[in-house]
Amino acid sequence: MTTAVCPGSFDPVTYGHLDVIGRTAALVDHLVVAVGRNAGKSALFDADERVEMLRGACRGWANVTVEQLDGLLVDFCVARGVTVISKGLRSASDTDYEVQMAQLNRRLSGVDTVFVPTAPELAFVSSTRVRELAAYGGDLSALVPPEVAERTRARVRAAR
Amino acid sequence: MTTAVCPGSFDPVTYGHLDVIGRTAALVDHLVVAVGRNAGKSALFDADERVEMLRGACRGWANVTVEQLDGLLVDFCVARGVTVISKGLRSASDTDYEVQMAQLNRRLSGVDTVFVPTAPELAFVSSTRVRELAAYGGDLSALVPPEVAERTRARVRAAR
Amino acid sequence: MTTAVCPGSFDPVTYGHLDVIGRTAALVDHLVVAVGRNAGKSALFDADERVEMLRGACRGWANVTVEQLDGLLVDFCVARGVTVISKGLRSASDTDYEVQMAQLNRRLSGVDTVFVPTAPELAFVSSTRVRELAAYGGDLSALVPPEVAERTRARVRAAR
Amino acid sequence: MTTAVCPGSFDPVTYGHLDVIGRTAALVDHLVVAVGRNAGKSALFDADERVEMLRGACRGWANVTVEQLDGLLVDFCVARGVTVISKGLRSASDTDYEVQMAQLNRRLSGVDTVFVPTAPELAFVSSTRVRELAAYGGDLSALVPPEVAERTRARVRAAR
Amino acid sequence: MTTAVCPGSFDPVTYGHLDVIGRTAALVDHLVVAVGRNAGKSALFDADERVEMLRGACRGWANVTVEQLDGLLVDFCVARGVTVISKGLRSASDTDYEVQMAQLNRRLSGVDTVFVPTAPELAFVSSTRVRELAAYGGDLSALVPPEVAERTRARVRAAR
Amino acid sequence: MTTAVCPGSFDPVTYGHLDVIGRTAALVDHLVVAVGRNAGKSALFDADERVEMLRGACRGWANVTVEQLDGLLVDFCVARGVTVISKGLRSASDTDYEVQMAQLNRRLSGVDTVFVPTAPELAFVSSTRVRELAAYGGDLSALVPPEVAERTRARVRAAR
Repeated sequence: MTTAVCPGSFDPVTYGHLDVIGRTAALVDHLVVAVGRNAGKSALFDADERVEMLRGACRGWANVTVEQLDGLLVDFCVARGVTVISKGLRSASDTDYEVQMAQLNRRLSGVDTVFVPTAPELAFVSSTRVRELAAYGGDLSALVPPEVAERTRARVRAAR
Repeated sequence: MTTAVCPGSFDPVTYGHLDVIGRTAALVDHLVVAVGRNAGKSALFDADERVEMLRGACRGWANVTVEQLDGLLVDFCVARGVTVISKGLRSASDTDYEVQMAQLNRRLSGVDTVFVPTAPELAFVSSTRVRELAAYGGDLSALVPPEVAERTRARVRAAR
Repeated sequence: MTTAVCPGSFDPVTYGHLDVIGRTAALVDHLVVAVGRNAGKSALFDADERVEMLRGACRGWANVTVEQLDGLLVDFCVARGVTVISKGLRSASDTDYEVQMAQLNRRLSGVDTVFVPTAPELAFVSSTRVRELAAYGGDLSALVPPEVAERTRARVRAAR
Repeated sequence: MTTAVCPGSFDPVTYGHLDVIGRTAALVDHLVVAVGRNAGKSALFDADERVEMLRGACRGWANVTVEQLDGLLVDFCVARGVTVISKGLRSASDTDYEVQMAQLNRRLSGVDTVFVPTAPELAFVSSTRVRELAAYGGDLSALVPPEVAERTRARVRAAR
Repeated sequence: MTTAVCPGSFDPVTYGHLDVIGRTAALVDHLVVAVGRNAGKSALFDADERVEMLRGACRGWANVTVEQLDGLLVDFCVARGVTVISKGLRSASDTDYEVQMAQLNRRLSGVDTVFVPTAPELAFVSSTRVRELAAYGGDLSALVPPEVAERTRARVRAAR
Repeated sequence: MTTAVCPGSFDPVTYGHLDVIGRTAALVDHLVVAVGRNAGKSALFDADERVEMLRGACRGWANVTVEQLDGLLVDFCVARGVTVISKGLRSASDTDYEVQMAQLNRRLSGVDTVFVPTAPELAFVSSTRVRELAAYGGDLSALVPPEVAERTRARVRAAR
């Protein structure tokens, strides 16, 4: 029984995240998506909202559950019997940071990390770009699912 | 039932390879180590020898088998029901090439690739460096198992 | 009739920016330098001042005009008939981010991006370093034109 | 009148090359594709064949011509009034080498280089991979046009 | 008489810093560790505390002294007769920034920089990760000396 | 008494090599330039000639000597009391390989490595480019000293 975790801020969830989640789900028995609470002061959505949007976007995968992550990822892994952390890897500029985090997490807990290379046509997708584009009324349809696009636009309008 | 493959030339197998093999084996039901036949003209060992050394080095993992790979990796995967390719990732300089190969293999066959970040203290280990060190009589004990070190030294002496 | 745009914050304009602007201007019919309004809270100069300094520094190129950029770059491009975005590229660490932005902008608007490799002797020049050096009274003469150096020093003194 | 050059070995031409050629052709008055003669001993096609395949693949662009390149690229540029060299840029791992070549060419001749970021879905395409895939009878349809695929398969079969 | 400087924020000092300090100290006559005052608003320890912790951690090296750095590093070097700046280098992602800073410092003052590659098993260690781990009560023993771990935990508890 | 070594093939010595040699010589008591014998089959000059050209180019530095390196660099270091290996570092693409070699050499012998960032205006200089340019009669004056340029041109002409 392999249980994997996909950790992140998901502020908001993008097609890039969903690509990694779906491909990881196809390789393991159970996948927990762990939504970090502290996305910084520039967070657009609070943790409850991010969990809710993820649950909507992941409802097609029977072996995926979504939870909040309140403490250290390694404590979360040990408490839930997670055997492997799964992270997306877009390009060389992500690698050194991600490899170092993987080494630290393995050192602290013994839990290993694997990287899933993102689909090339999604390499430009990130939550930061979604928030920047939304701030200027740009088209979000290539980056996030329709429900997420709508909520993001509404949130940005309300924030002005 | 997840079946993974770790492909490579393994000329000869190093502690770096064995780190990736062992960590992958811990995450899947069955792991096939696929030894590429065509390691180029500078090959030190032929494919049979490389398979033999790998079988020796992997005998401690019950779910690992070693086979020769004669054609395309994607054809090998489809023929054996391999669900995922597992590759080691040492550093940023490996990433772009490996991500591109992963995208090509997925495009050709649907088989996905995950990357396992190598243990930091093994980052300097590679088959090329083993062959270079052996050519000058250098100490191989930090890079390969004792049996492999002995065979490599013997082969290099014979080649002079 | 090729019209290019060089977008940026230019807080303040440096010899690195002017190298990219001058070399792009030599390749196209018309070049618009687009000065982003929102340079964040740490901006040293407001957008009007940045435009003014750029106009001074670019007065030697007949086919270069300087404008403020208030919304999305892709909207600016479509509204002004810009055919290509021109960005400086200093080193590998810039590449992944810049390529992703280029892909996003092309996807959103069809407007393509080209990269101009910065002159090697200017690789260390950036607006951030100009502001940091100025904060400690360092010599700015290798990084920005004399008029910009003078205004930067005056602004930093006033801010203390 | 801008004249650009796209240099390369094109052994054989791929969809990745054609993406850069087509996007460069859209930005300049005239584009010369310069086919290097010396592709090394592992060349699959000789220079005449590579020129012929490129002419076929580029016939849809009225402002593109294809020529052999026998000496230094900078001499070719000066002799033909080329104002700019255009190169594709796939990822960070290409950057340092390409920026250095651009600096050398500019130093030797004054001719500048711009980089066109390759389409993300073509990042895995290269002539080397085409030759490797063809050697094992792999499917080339995602990497090269049909005519090129057919000639490549025929050539590889004949070489066995 | 070679005098080197190891500059940094050291908020707090880690085993990674101490590795670079110790290896530099072995190569030069005298080494000054220069503790930057302005570590930003997110500083955990003020400059006096960071100097004090460093003096404790460096007491085993007779040729190492610790000082505060209040202005520009290049002014500090010239005032103290420093002949070379020594920086740790972990991975490719550090390189471009560090090389640019080295070029700027050499241009401003003539003082050169050398890079010491960090020990591979310490590649994941950074002050930022120490602060993040401490915030969640994580185990710091692989990253900092015991005295630093204790002070960091106490500081974080007090800050809640 | 610090003794450093600058190892390389130097086929032929370039202004890039001489920049690293001169800057290292300014930081240490004695510097040995170690000329590797086995530069592969594509070597333009044999080891004696490379040593001779280096001795000519280094005659201005009183503390620099030039020697052939026949075996492993680490054995050379131990035999001559070398305390540190000094390597040039041009860009991020060099880093991972060089850091791994430094870790291996330190593991095998205890001898440490420092990196000297090359002067930015020499980043495009390499022996490979010198040989390529010379093969087509290109201008070498920006890459190597006049005596080296003359010998390189003569050698290439003779080889035709």
